[in-house]
Amino acid sequence: MKIGIIGGGSIGLLFSCYLSENHQVTLYCRTINQVNMINQCGITLQKKDSSILSNIHAKLSTERVADELVLVTVKQYHLPELLPILDKIPQHIPLLFLQNGMGHLDYLQKMKHDNILLGVVEHGALKISLSTVKHTGFGTTRVAAYKGDMQKLMAIKNTLQMSNFPFEIEANYNEMLIRKLVVNAAINPLTALLRIKNGDLLSNNYYFELLKEVFQEIIQVLCLQELEDTYFASIVSICQSTSNNYSSMLKDILEHRQTEIEGIVGVLRNKAEIQKQSVPFLQFLYTSIKGMEYKRWDE
Amino acid sequence: MKIGIIGGGSIGLLFSCYLSENHQVTLYCRTINQVNMINQCGITLQKKDSSILSNIHAKLSTERVADELVLVTVKQYHLPELLPILDKIPQHIPLLFLQNGMGHLDYLQKMKHDNILLGVVEHGALKISLSTVKHTGFGTTRVAAYKGDMQKLMAIKNTLQMSNFPFEIEANYNEMLIRKLVVNAAINPLTALLRIKNGDLLSNNYYFELLKEVFQEIIQVLCLQELEDTYFASIVSICQSTSNNYSSMLKDILEHRQTEIEGIVGVLRNKAEIQKQSVPFLQFLYTSIKGMEYKRWDE
Repeated sequence: MKIGIIGGGSIGLLFSCYLSENHQVTLYCRTINQVNMINQCGITLQKKDSSILSNIHAKLSTERVADELVLVTVKQYHLPELLPILDKIPQHIPLLFLQNGMGHLDYLQKMKHDNILLGVVEHGALKISLSTVKHTGFGTTRVAAYKGDMQKLMAIKNTLQMSNFPFEIEANYNEMLIRKLVVNAAINPLTALLRIKNGDLLSNNYYFELLKEVFQEIIQVLCLQELEDTYFASIVSICQSTSNNYSSMLKDILEHRQTEIEGIVGVLRNKAEIQKQSVPFLQFLYTSIKGMEYKRWDE
Repeated sequence: MKIGIIGGGSIGLLFSCYLSENHQVTLYCRTINQVNMINQCGITLQKKDSSILSNIHAKLSTERVADELVLVTVKQYHLPELLPILDKIPQHIPLLFLQNGMGHLDYLQKMKHDNILLGVVEHGALKISLSTVKHTGFGTTRVAAYKGDMQKLMAIKNTLQMSNFPFEIEANYNEMLIRKLVVNAAINPLTALLRIKNGDLLSNNYYFELLKEVFQEIIQVLCLQELEDTYFASIVSICQSTSNNYSSMLKDILEHRQTEIEGIVGVLRNKAEIQKQSVPFLQFLYTSIKGMEYKRWDE
């Protein structure tokens, strides 16, 4: 299948490498530097004990996309500038969006495409250079239909499926995104503000206290009180399995990049405001991270 | 006058240098290293354009204090271990306590001494080495009577007074400490958590937002609503005049030392609990800084 992957970040690079094993992949990047680099050197995928070089064709993301399936892997805050390009992709081509948070749902409403899929990526990936990505944590990609029929979704899943890069279908996209949102909102901003590894949220009693308080606010805003125990257990389990990792938001802060705070905590904060709920810890985290972004850009 | 100064931190070193101009000063230190260093090399006071070496006699703080006036400059959290030593100082010898926050008031209640004075130091001082201190900000030392008569306080103030190291008398020790507490509680934990200079609290809009929220909680706990504008103006003015400085709490965190969080935010948090007030931002700051201390000791 001809697959277009938009976005040359860690997720875009990771998917390009794996999917190019069975498919003809084109990676659409924002900078000509990255396009040239990938066309000349390919993409290197670093795994635990090995390194694989894949020859992948790269293009500028402003170029016309002509593929049978398009994966959108850019950060949520880069979506608006991409909309005119997505708009030019024929209506019958399925699009799969792989953003964190829920901020991107607003944009999808207006899209004319017949099949829009949403996915959450449970892999860990670290962009080492413009053309090198490290697969730091093995996981699953969960996909659900936002718009379109189940058969198409099944067909796409079966096409993408690989034993060492699995895909799973989720019945309800909203539940799927919310599950990821709860985890991201609990772990990312706290670890970014405190500049700690994910595991420190468990091993340091004071940080664990903060985690529980933040979690309570998230549960309250999303009206998930009934599933509280399940959700908290999954956060603890993720902190354990990624205990030595830095969250993506902390990495963004350390590398002076914009963070995904709007799509993660911003969404919850707005929801709380509409529901007239007080979420002071989320508010504190939101304002701190916005300040850290502001400061970075200012330097 | 024979003056004993307990505590070889930045304030103890600073006061030793200035007061030794007119008085016979003994500095009581916690480590034999610092005692030996000071007895061999004296204390160097770095000013903006000059450096002054003073010969000062140092002793271990476990040794008997035999002076006519004793200044206690150790951090509030070191007071408990010092109480047996202070207890042995004759009842008629005046004691001047120079701690931040209000946590030390609990200890003073039980002391038998006739004259107990409290002071707040508005100088900036940085300990460069065991025997070198830098006077980074010129200020005033405000003193008030906690116990004892006004005449004694006046006499001590006149004895200590220097044109380049001024002392001022305050009528009400509680008001004086609260004024300092408001400033410390607003500036110190935020700058320590965010790892920013004092001036960033004004120049970064998001941080300024956090400062205002934290300030509102402080004002509420201390029932200072009537003086709100005056207090906020003084915080802004201190952030401006120390805009390039790191707060003492941030320095403590960066240098892996215990912070004064208990005496500053801990006191407010307990007060809020008794008064059944919700202070989520102070709570967040308290728990974060405690976690940062915990982590440091753990490493």
